Amino acid sequence: MSGATGDIGLIGLAVMGQNLILNMNDKGFNVVCYNRTTSKVDHFLANEAKGTKIQGAHSIQELCAKLKRPRKIILLVKAGPAVDDFIKQLEPYLEEGDIVIDGGNSHYPDSIRRTKELESKGLLFVGSGVSGGEEGARYGPSLMPGGSPAAWPSIKEIFQKAAAQVNGEPCCDWVGETGAGHYVKMVHNGIEYGDMQLISEVYDILKRGLGLSEDEIADIFFKWNTGVLDSFLIDITANILKFKDDDGEPLVSKILDQAGQKGTGKWTAINALDAGMPVTLIGEAVFARCLSSLKAERTRASKVIAGPQKETFRGDKQQFIDDLEQALYASKIISYTQGFMLMRETAKELNWNLNYAGIARMWRGGCIIKSVFLGDITSAYIKTPDLESLLFDDFFNKAVHKAQPGWRRIIAQAVLWGIPTPAFSTALAFFDGYRSEIVPANLLQAQRDYFGAHTFRVLPGKENAKLKAGEDIHINWTGRGGNVSASSYVA
Amino acid sequence: MSGATGDIGLIGLAVMGQNLILNMNDKGFNVVCYNRTTSKVDHFLANEAKGTKIQGAHSIQELCAKLKRPRKIILLVKAGPAVDDFIKQLEPYLEEGDIVIDGGNSHYPDSIRRTKELESKGLLFVGSGVSGGEEGARYGPSLMPGGSPAAWPSIKEIFQKAAAQVNGEPCCDWVGETGAGHYVKMVHNGIEYGDMQLISEVYDILKRGLGLSEDEIADIFFKWNTGVLDSFLIDITANILKFKDDDGEPLVSKILDQAGQKGTGKWTAINALDAGMPVTLIGEAVFARCLSSLKAERTRASKVIAGPQKETFRGDKQQFIDDLEQALYASKIISYTQGFMLMRETAKELNWNLNYAGIARMWRGGCIIKSVFLGDITSAYIKTPDLESLLFDDFFNKAVHKAQPGWRRIIAQAVLWGIPTPAFSTALAFFDGYRSEIVPANLLQAQRDYFGAHTFRVLPGKENAKLKAGEDIHINWTGRGGNVSASSYVA
Repeated sequence: MSGATGDIGLIGLAVMGQNLILNMNDKGFNVVCYNRTTSKVDHFLANEAKGTKIQGAHSIQELCAKLKRPRKIILLVKAGPAVDDFIKQLEPYLEEGDIVIDGGNSHYPDSIRRTKELESKGLLFVGSGVSGGEEGARYGPSLMPGGSPAAWPSIKEIFQKAAAQVNGEPCCDWVGETGAGHYVKMVHNGIEYGDMQLISEVYDILKRGLGLSEDEIADIFFKWNTGVLDSFLIDITANILKFKDDDGEPLVSKILDQAGQKGTGKWTAINALDAGMPVTLIGEAVFARCLSSLKAERTRASKVIAGPQKETFRGDKQQFIDDLEQALYASKIISYTQGFMLMRETAKELNWNLNYAGIARMWRGGCIIKSVFLGDITSAYIKTPDLESLLFDDFFNKAVHKAQPGWRRIIAQAVLWGIPTPAFSTALAFFDGYRSEIVPANLLQAQRDYFGAHTFRVLPGKENAKLKAGEDIHINWTGRGGNVSASSYVA
Repeated sequence: MSGATGDIGLIGLAVMGQNLILNMNDKGFNVVCYNRTTSKVDHFLANEAKGTKIQGAHSIQELCAKLKRPRKIILLVKAGPAVDDFIKQLEPYLEEGDIVIDGGNSHYPDSIRRTKELESKGLLFVGSGVSGGEEGARYGPSLMPGGSPAAWPSIKEIFQKAAAQVNGEPCCDWVGETGAGHYVKMVHNGIEYGDMQLISEVYDILKRGLGLSEDEIADIFFKWNTGVLDSFLIDITANILKFKDDDGEPLVSKILDQAGQKGTGKWTAINALDAGMPVTLIGEAVFARCLSSLKAERTRASKVIAGPQKETFRGDKQQFIDDLEQALYASKIISYTQGFMLMRETAKELNWNLNYAGIARMWRGGCIIKSVFLGDITSAYIKTPDLESLLFDDFFNKAVHKAQPGWRRIIAQAVLWGIPTPAFSTALAFFDGYRSEIVPANLLQAQRDYFGAHTFRVLPGKENAKLKAGEDIHINWTGRGGNVSASSYVA
């Protein structure tokens, strides 16, 4: 142990690992790296890490020996069994108070379990969301650490210095207990799915609806990137649309329109279903990827199913483009509203104290969804830490009211054109449902009572001798059924 | 054993159990019943079952002693541990070849497990979907048995006689191996969620949009029930809307608009996400229930979020109502298309041989979603057993083309009115995406490659020296990133 000079260790030299090491090295930390295939360590030291203080290790034992106490070791390996494998390999060389940090895309229940397991052995665990892709890891990612609170003081300086900085503030803070870090990263990724789907719908509407070229669409995104939509994803979208293949054609138009979805977006949608929270926009974004992956079936379908007659757009194009900007903005407000509703509900269930302003600030820079917008969300939660919903915040409430007419016009037009807008449409359906004191679920409850004796409750203000407040009421709708209610059997 | 006269036993005397017993008794079978709280047995024999051949048992041992070999015992108890509990209690009294039938709403992975467990002990297991609520159980439910194929010959007569009959055919056939029966019931329930949500949206549009009364809306449903929408749910909806409270007000308008969703609809949506199949309509139906349950929050939101200016409808009302019928019909076609796509995908994964025409026939009568429509689906699958999608069938292809203009007009109008139509809208978005040879997922793949080096593939027909068919391609979009692809790390 004497002579150990490493501030932090990192296992896993894929692109994210390499870049995060170089980043921490730039910030003045002494990083020790290890990889299962050790030739990668040598290659990295001889190339990307050449001329730096970065040290290599050819075994787990060597890695641990080179680290100062308490040891801090980041795993950036494939989520799943590999994480548990490395933890098992590390344990013999760790001492009380040492910290294992999982920076991969682990599912948060695994992080809850690992926190408990390592704490029971006197060790500390941190499950940290890391977002920002290659670029973020290299120049400042968004870091979302949660797990053993006792670990935070030891890793705070490294994490906050390695993280992206926005207006002098790091995009990293302590998220919360056990699996909170990976949970918040999961919701972040779900929101990322939503943002990407919304932008894809805009592209489709401008291309197939207005008939614009990739260059023209790029210019629109560049312009939007100077307004309320200013964000990394809008910026790279503009860059992508401008990017030409060698023959001068936009490269994007040569890319297969088939996207995978086996990731964290799906977890967020499943979590929303389990929590009973209507996070519809992420759900539709995941399903849109599923539909895109049925390329062969879609191609066959396109031959036998016709859409509406194609009509040239005769309205005011600039007005339409402005409406579209508002539609995207409003839909995005809904998506983040839903995401924060989900986090709120889960925090309640799992007894986590989540700092919503802190979460928005962590996402404000460094990560894929970084945006000016997240600065506005930070402000909303600073002003009202227990804000029930973004739509109750003055700023967003005004924004969504302003956006509403254009948002509706865009969806109505896309529907008539035959251009699919699953995310735009579900955002508006949520908005209209959310602001409805009465939704038609009364009919649904009547149906359930009719066919399954599932009972219903009375609407406040409509109580009478037969319809008593707070009671589960069953009506014999047909005059034939009995009066047995279906308490133990749900059809 | 000598003197045993029972054809079949049933455990669980909630409403479904009682009614299924009376039904089997009517069909000439000798039923023995048991309930954990045995006073329920006595009460049932002295009341509902008075004057029948139905026998009671006051212990599991007595129940088993009264049954002919091979014993057939239906459990109609709460899904979950109670099923395993009763199986454990039964085992000591069962002999090789005896059959345990779980008729509850068990999750299909449990039925897969139970089939294997009981078969390893020389017993047989059947997991059977039972649908139809109180009425169905009493007068003929839809029965969807799967599990140990060797059990089918012994239970076939009882099951097919107890089931609903349509045109002389029973709404019961063997579904498939292990968990197939409960799986198909789960999808049935998901589709039921969808159908109910669609009807609720129609009600909302007619009430809030056209300003019609419950009586007027009931008449529309009664009329629709004589056409392509002829179905149990449309029929009971009309009856519900006509049902008056003592003061003459429609009872439905006094029911709390808050629906639960902790059931099998959620399982179907999660299964769809896991299978990567875009079963969007059921997903939205589940989320619509989630949103309905946020009654207090919606009420607060309704005070601070305004919708569009309310405008009186100036168009042709009858045309609008006809459009709405077509919108409901088209959305329903999409929902069933999605449901059958999901079953197809799962059957492929789990190596089940599902008989799709048989499934549609089982749903044709007896159950909550029973309809003329399901007769048309049966015909489609009889004509083409390996039909890729309902939209490729001539009948449905024509139907959806005919419905399309009205469907679009309805959604566009609801969007402008501010009436939420999550299920209508997602159905149309799926339809427009499904019939699109190109969807904008190319942009999404470009984004993923830009920020995370996730690679993409080339669109067929656009290959060149740099963009090779079948290869995972990564482009250095910015001129800054490296050439490492993100194979082991997914952001």
